[in-house]
Amino acid sequence: MMRAAGDVRIEDVPDPAISEPTDVIIRVTRACVCGSDLWPYNSMAPSETGQSMGHEAIGVVEEIGADVRTVKRGDVVVMPFAISDGTCEFCREGLTTACVHVGFFGTDGMNGAQAEAVRVPYADGTLYPVPVGEDDPLMPSLLTLSDVMGTGHHAAVAAKVSPGKRVAVVGDGAVGLCGVIAAKRLGAEQIIILGRHPDRIVLARDFGATDVVSERGAEAVERVKELTGGYGANSVLECVGLEQAVETAIAIARPGGAVGRVGVPQHQAIPGAEPSFFGNVTVGGGPAPVRAYIDELLPDVLDGRIEPGRVFDRTVDLDGVPDGYRAMNDRESIKVMVTP
Amino acid sequence: MMRAAGDVRIEDVPDPAISEPTDVIIRVTRACVCGSDLWPYNSMAPSETGQSMGHEAIGVVEEIGADVRTVKRGDVVVMPFAISDGTCEFCREGLTTACVHVGFFGTDGMNGAQAEAVRVPYADGTLYPVPVGEDDPLMPSLLTLSDVMGTGHHAAVAAKVSPGKRVAVVGDGAVGLCGVIAAKRLGAEQIIILGRHPDRIVLARDFGATDVVSERGAEAVERVKELTGGYGANSVLECVGLEQAVETAIAIARPGGAVGRVGVPQHQAIPGAEPSFFGNVTVGGGPAPVRAYIDELLPDVLDGRIEPGRVFDRTVDLDGVPDGYRAMNDRESIKVMVTP
Repeated sequence: MMRAAGDVRIEDVPDPAISEPTDVIIRVTRACVCGSDLWPYNSMAPSETGQSMGHEAIGVVEEIGADVRTVKRGDVVVMPFAISDGTCEFCREGLTTACVHVGFFGTDGMNGAQAEAVRVPYADGTLYPVPVGEDDPLMPSLLTLSDVMGTGHHAAVAAKVSPGKRVAVVGDGAVGLCGVIAAKRLGAEQIIILGRHPDRIVLARDFGATDVVSERGAEAVERVKELTGGYGANSVLECVGLEQAVETAIAIARPGGAVGRVGVPQHQAIPGAEPSFFGNVTVGGGPAPVRAYIDELLPDVLDGRIEPGRVFDRTVDLDGVPDGYRAMNDRESIKVMVTP
Repeated sequence: MMRAAGDVRIEDVPDPAISEPTDVIIRVTRACVCGSDLWPYNSMAPSETGQSMGHEAIGVVEEIGADVRTVKRGDVVVMPFAISDGTCEFCREGLTTACVHVGFFGTDGMNGAQAEAVRVPYADGTLYPVPVGEDDPLMPSLLTLSDVMGTGHHAAVAAKVSPGKRVAVVGDGAVGLCGVIAAKRLGAEQIIILGRHPDRIVLARDFGATDVVSERGAEAVERVKELTGGYGANSVLECVGLEQAVETAIAIARPGGAVGRVGVPQHQAIPGAEPSFFGNVTVGGGPAPVRAYIDELLPDVLDGRIEPGRVFDRTVDLDGVPDGYRAMNDRESIKVMVTP
């Protein structure tokens, strides 16, 4: 439970229970602390009720509502960060994060996954059963399909990455690192990561980054242009969410290029109305429809062609969650896995 | 010559002359006043040298530089608003407004087309010969290929209009009206125009608009949602350039939809960082590569399948240009044609 900025506590709460016939209850076997959890960790106003946190999980189905059809007790399932009914027009188009019944775990009073168990509404549309045991060695990579790998992929799709393209990734957090994996997977010829944390840069290079830019602001823009024949990157993955990062992302895009935003915006307006206009730079992206992307990404995880689970560099039990937040916030850890 | 906001004068200036071997001189047979000319008309600081205005023209080639290959003396040519060399990587990709030699007629000291003659750099890449006489009845529609028809088409392309889509057009100026033509031409099923000038709305309906929204701001958003099954338009053409128009454009886009901006932005930041993000709404567009679009649009003009020339509702000679600015600025006229 988060009760205020910096105040994360482990509390006994009532067990979740089926309340709609489309619900299931899962026992959480793996969860995460997300970079986006750090926004409230740094800014949440004190709250009497608090907020149950966590929106990424893998678990085992324990209880099933009467109308649930596609998952059954005992299934190991990926729980994406957003609820989706699987049947509305947006879900059918693959934009599950615009589902007419969308909701986000661990926000607005909805139960979070940094817990022993969680109630999952619209389970048929939300959960994705995976053909492995609950302690499979692939668990860390499978867990990233609940958010960061799908989100990095969405950034790459929104930035129109395709074979032969020059790509830049703004941000070296877990999503930026998964963006590198996604860009390579989609055939990028050059992948420049903008970041300055040595441990993350090592991983970025392992994942396929060809160049590193550790400068910021105008110097970063100049350096990326030098590395891209003078004009910038065809595709820019914005994996931070701060105004300065978006401004840089637009500035390093080649004319006619595209920026894919997946960092939750901490600002009211998109900077660079004029440079994006005069460069015909497209700005796209948003909450990733990770549920819809699992079909495409799961085979590569199961076959070991991609290893996004390497972004986890620390594992904690529930009691260790508060220190996990601290470690990620202090940039001691890239991403923390939780084993309740 | 514009010498300050509201101060447009007809002046005798030296005849333009070939200065580079890739130049040609054209005698202007048709030119226009553009909606974008009204920005300096309302805001230009007083200038001793002034600015020769106008960036849309059709003319007859009179003089040719030594290296010009694809146009010859006597050709009737469309002069798009931007210079493009036709050979750089951007021109080869079709983004002629990002040409490494780009320049915009009638800005930054470059000669304008509201004149008897104009010097055209990189004539082979910039000019487009058309197979008609200089007084052909199709002249008004051909003239729109120099800017407004190509710009409306670009808005539609950037907004990803395709068969069956619901489209909204923000702005009922000449570009918005051409956006309606473009949306219909690309197969839109529903075309909503947001505007409130009765003469323009009549024309919009003739061009294919199926619905009219005359409200503004939050009421306009509500009305468009009602007209589109509750969720907004797949494609929104932003043909104004004011912050409020962009905000409306984003607000009326369906989740997963796209906004194509072609109004020259009069603001520093794109409003709606959060709604565009949470709706996965793509924002694209910029200066239209109209030179590259002529190949596609010209056959439809020559065959009479589209009649964008109907946006001209007033014709003036050079002496009438100052009053033409006034008439467009007062919304007495949709678009003014100039016959020097």
